[in-house]
Amino acid sequence: MVSITDIREQTVSIASPIRNAVIDFSKMTISALVIETDLKRGGKSIKGYGFTSNGRYGQSGILRERMIPRLLSAHDIASEDGRNLDPFKCWQAMMANEKPGGHGERSVALGAIDMALWDLVAKIEDRPLYQVLSDRYAEGRSNPSVRVYAAGGYYYPDSASHLLETEMRGYLDMGFREVKMKIGGASLDEDRVRIERVLNIVGDGNRLAVDANARFDAQTAIDYAEAMTEYGLRWYEEPVGVLDFEALKEVRQASTMPIATGENLFSCEDSLNLIRYGGLDARVDFLQMDPALSYGLVEYLRTLEMLSAHGWSAGRCVPHGGHQFGLHLAAGLGLFGNEAYPGVFEPFGCFAPEMQLENGRVRLTDAPGIGYEAVPEIHAVLKGA
Amino acid sequence: MVSITDIREQTVSIASPIRNAVIDFSKMTISALVIETDLKRGGKSIKGYGFTSNGRYGQSGILRERMIPRLLSAHDIASEDGRNLDPFKCWQAMMANEKPGGHGERSVALGAIDMALWDLVAKIEDRPLYQVLSDRYAEGRSNPSVRVYAAGGYYYPDSASHLLETEMRGYLDMGFREVKMKIGGASLDEDRVRIERVLNIVGDGNRLAVDANARFDAQTAIDYAEAMTEYGLRWYEEPVGVLDFEALKEVRQASTMPIATGENLFSCEDSLNLIRYGGLDARVDFLQMDPALSYGLVEYLRTLEMLSAHGWSAGRCVPHGGHQFGLHLAAGLGLFGNEAYPGVFEPFGCFAPEMQLENGRVRLTDAPGIGYEAVPEIHAVLKGA
Repeated sequence: MVSITDIREQTVSIASPIRNAVIDFSKMTISALVIETDLKRGGKSIKGYGFTSNGRYGQSGILRERMIPRLLSAHDIASEDGRNLDPFKCWQAMMANEKPGGHGERSVALGAIDMALWDLVAKIEDRPLYQVLSDRYAEGRSNPSVRVYAAGGYYYPDSASHLLETEMRGYLDMGFREVKMKIGGASLDEDRVRIERVLNIVGDGNRLAVDANARFDAQTAIDYAEAMTEYGLRWYEEPVGVLDFEALKEVRQASTMPIATGENLFSCEDSLNLIRYGGLDARVDFLQMDPALSYGLVEYLRTLEMLSAHGWSAGRCVPHGGHQFGLHLAAGLGLFGNEAYPGVFEPFGCFAPEMQLENGRVRLTDAPGIGYEAVPEIHAVLKGA
Repeated sequence: MVSITDIREQTVSIASPIRNAVIDFSKMTISALVIETDLKRGGKSIKGYGFTSNGRYGQSGILRERMIPRLLSAHDIASEDGRNLDPFKCWQAMMANEKPGGHGERSVALGAIDMALWDLVAKIEDRPLYQVLSDRYAEGRSNPSVRVYAAGGYYYPDSASHLLETEMRGYLDMGFREVKMKIGGASLDEDRVRIERVLNIVGDGNRLAVDANARFDAQTAIDYAEAMTEYGLRWYEEPVGVLDFEALKEVRQASTMPIATGENLFSCEDSLNLIRYGGLDARVDFLQMDPALSYGLVEYLRTLEMLSAHGWSAGRCVPHGGHQFGLHLAAGLGLFGNEAYPGVFEPFGCFAPEMQLENGRVRLTDAPGIGYEAVPEIHAVLKGA
């Protein structure tokens, strides 16, 4: 029977001078963690690495006081044949004695452990994670070339407004084709000017998404939608409060712009309410739930099943977070693509040097597991956990 | 200007051998905390005490890493005249750089601080908290005699099933008139027998509520409702998943039993969705949001305002938690009553020796603040934080 011998975590700063329409990231942290097993390869124990995505801070307390002790003391966490770990059994062990509802923070703590568990599962199989996922959950279909878009488009001081163009040109130079920019941190007129400046760089509306970070009330969101419709943008992200499904439905009904939301919903239950009440259209809208923030891939698989039962394909999902875990899910489960934050939340948004970024797609390598060892900057932090 | 000079917190075990239909409480903890100011009375600094209610564990990480440092470094947290603290300004300071949604855990951490802040606000005014609240938010109406019910009715081993009667008789002997018992941890037939045994003790259906702890699916919940209708019970608590508003609506439509829910909703936004989608009836149903778990009284006042706008009076609210903070809210804001857990989660559910419990009501004293100093067992823990 495989068993877990150690779990270590540390809080790491991912402070960044950026801000969106709601918060700044000057004190943002994550929890980075490593899980060790009693299996060895090449004389070394096989390790799994995980971290807590971004935007929701490190989770030292919940990890140390609840999730890690429960997992370390669990008896039945191996797969049927005893040769690998079973992330579903691990999930049950970690959620023991947790009351229903209140999905936030613990979902982030559990998500980091789940990420490390799947890294382990794939390493024990000695295969890249996306291949394990496609064999188990997508009838073997996979595509290691994943569509990615560069999330950025921040606000700059008036004196340096040209930096917006510089930023966007930088993304195209790296190999991105699609980008996302912030709106809602200035007046609608100013935001229109910013959108048009970015369109001049990227060339086509369907290469640009806009993100309001849940700042608007329904009427403001609709005013923005009306002003932006002519641009034919890729999507309009989080126009209104993330739990205000009535307002979302109003925006959806008032506009033809594709809407994207879900990065701040942290459970299958919450996502189900979005689908039930938000009025979204499975043909045009996008869902951005981040498995690392929302109880991990174990819960994300439940969410995909729930979505399927409501007529949504995995191809409408494009996870928040910009982590390589999301790339493997996109490659192995047929998601639309994955977010990327070039130069932000470093090193956790970096690609491995071997991963080619061309024409808006990045290609996963054959490295076993998620492959964080191949990103020197990430590995340096994770192995120190 | 009043200022906060120190905030100390510690994690305290409230382990209890009980279990409900979903979790056991053998490893349950809370965070206890004390806030000190630069104001003195009788030569000693005025202190505020708070803790994290129960059921959601201590929150050391979020308190130490986010809430406490933000509050300690905030500049503008005093009332207009500078003589007291403003819990609303404190709330804004603590929620700086927190993303929207994901209401759980941080809502618990903030709730504990909020409790201590209101304790301070009332102590600085040298009045009991309920009087401060009634003056500020209820046009001076208050009633220091608060309706309380004893939550318990646990499952006992078959060999000791008579302990259910013993437990219930004990509550009546203490001065309670209304009690609550667990259901859903046995078959419907067994639960019916248990309910009838308790009815033999308390005498009348409207003195007994039942709690399924969100365990049932819609059909099971309806089957239970049909079987229980004849008893005329006080309420049927958390029949289905706490975020499954469709299932709740089905149960509501299928039954005339009053429903109670909300203890696992931790924000005004989540409560609004319950009201929008759950199909509850403002004339017969009850809402149990626990301010200490859900961003404190500052958020609870927003929730009461939201409820009022949807036709719900404060008189339909009966908070979860069994803490004296809830008693003051009930007394000062006109709530239906408050939960109590005699002998469980001690010492945090204890009443002060001076507080008389008679005929199902407990009377608050004139002690300034919340009055935890008057409960020796609580004070011993809180002052050690």
